[in-house]
Amino acid sequence: MSTSGRTQARGEARKEHILEVAFKIFAENGYRGASIADIAEGCGLSQPGLLHHFSTKADLLAGVLEHRDRLDAEKFHMDEPTPGIAALKRYVKLVEYNAHLPGLVKLFAIVTGEAAVNSAHPAHEWVVARYHRRIGDLAASLRLGVDDGSIRADVDTTATARRVFAMMDGLQLQWLLHPEQVDMPGLFRSFVDDLIAEITP
Amino acid sequence: MSTSGRTQARGEARKEHILEVAFKIFAENGYRGASIADIAEGCGLSQPGLLHHFSTKADLLAGVLEHRDRLDAEKFHMDEPTPGIAALKRYVKLVEYNAHLPGLVKLFAIVTGEAAVNSAHPAHEWVVARYHRRIGDLAASLRLGVDDGSIRADVDTTATARRVFAMMDGLQLQWLLHPEQVDMPGLFRSFVDDLIAEITP
Repeated sequence: MSTSGRTQARGEARKEHILEVAFKIFAENGYRGASIADIAEGCGLSQPGLLHHFSTKADLLAGVLEHRDRLDAEKFHMDEPTPGIAALKRYVKLVEYNAHLPGLVKLFAIVTGEAAVNSAHPAHEWVVARYHRRIGDLAASLRLGVDDGSIRADVDTTATARRVFAMMDGLQLQWLLHPEQVDMPGLFRSFVDDLIAEITP
Repeated sequence: MSTSGRTQARGEARKEHILEVAFKIFAENGYRGASIADIAEGCGLSQPGLLHHFSTKADLLAGVLEHRDRLDAEKFHMDEPTPGIAALKRYVKLVEYNAHLPGLVKLFAIVTGEAAVNSAHPAHEWVVARYHRRIGDLAASLRLGVDDGSIRADVDTTATARRVFAMMDGLQLQWLLHPEQVDMPGLFRSFVDDLIAEITP
């Protein structure tokens, strides 16, 4: 590896480390409650040292959210179009996986909540675009199922996709409030099983 | 009315006014983003004048949440035990009503979100108790339906109640993100209709 290659790899590793530290601090405090000073301290950097990599707190939040979404997309092949029922079952796996990552669920819950109530929030556009894309992708998968006959032709695919994400978000909230009492993956799995029974011919 | 009676009535009216102003400021900014100074200014009071009625910001938030919940409970007779299917339909009416009150939905969404991710939040216990009570009440209503034969005996009433509140919360979030595109009451009504078809004999 050349010297510049080594420098670049070190820069990437440091950026990854910053994103992991920032993720934890945002997950615990939300966007507004997290401070650049705390994140810099958690990384063992000065504030100018941190701002060299991410120039604002909003940039840092965007970096964290995209990084985590990319890891999920790779793990569950979320970006590949999957027809019908298989797409629904993939979300059951995702919720099972998330049940082991309360910090991650908290980060998305708090950022989504903050952005939903405040259109000036720096993640507002990102959150709106994310829902638009996820609902559109799942609706498209369900339409593939309608096309191949595995899903009934009279199913409203967009409304069904909205229901799936609403149930996922709502159960996450109950689980965060009462982790010992709420079997989030079990409740979501039985919802999806009943949904599949409802939409298949 | 005696002088002390008039003073008391004036005190109550002022308290109600403070709760309405605080409601708007919490709904726009969340608990952390709202300041006592802004609320006092919005009420035309000094900070000591405001703190005479509510001694901390947490007290004020608790006052606002309880006031709004009490108004809803009175309007929809939420506190009366209603058997089975009628209880589900009452929530459809509540969601239709909430669709005209985005500020109210925002307040509950942001406070619930903040409390869910942070167990040290001043409303944490209140939110946990609220979910516990609402889910317990709806499950009890559904059990009355099982007893009178209008709901199938094999229905898991607590899991069903959890689903109803999860769907309500999740659709609220999508609606707050995209008010023009998301028909929250319509989506919730069709969810409840399908649920009723599923749980009736």
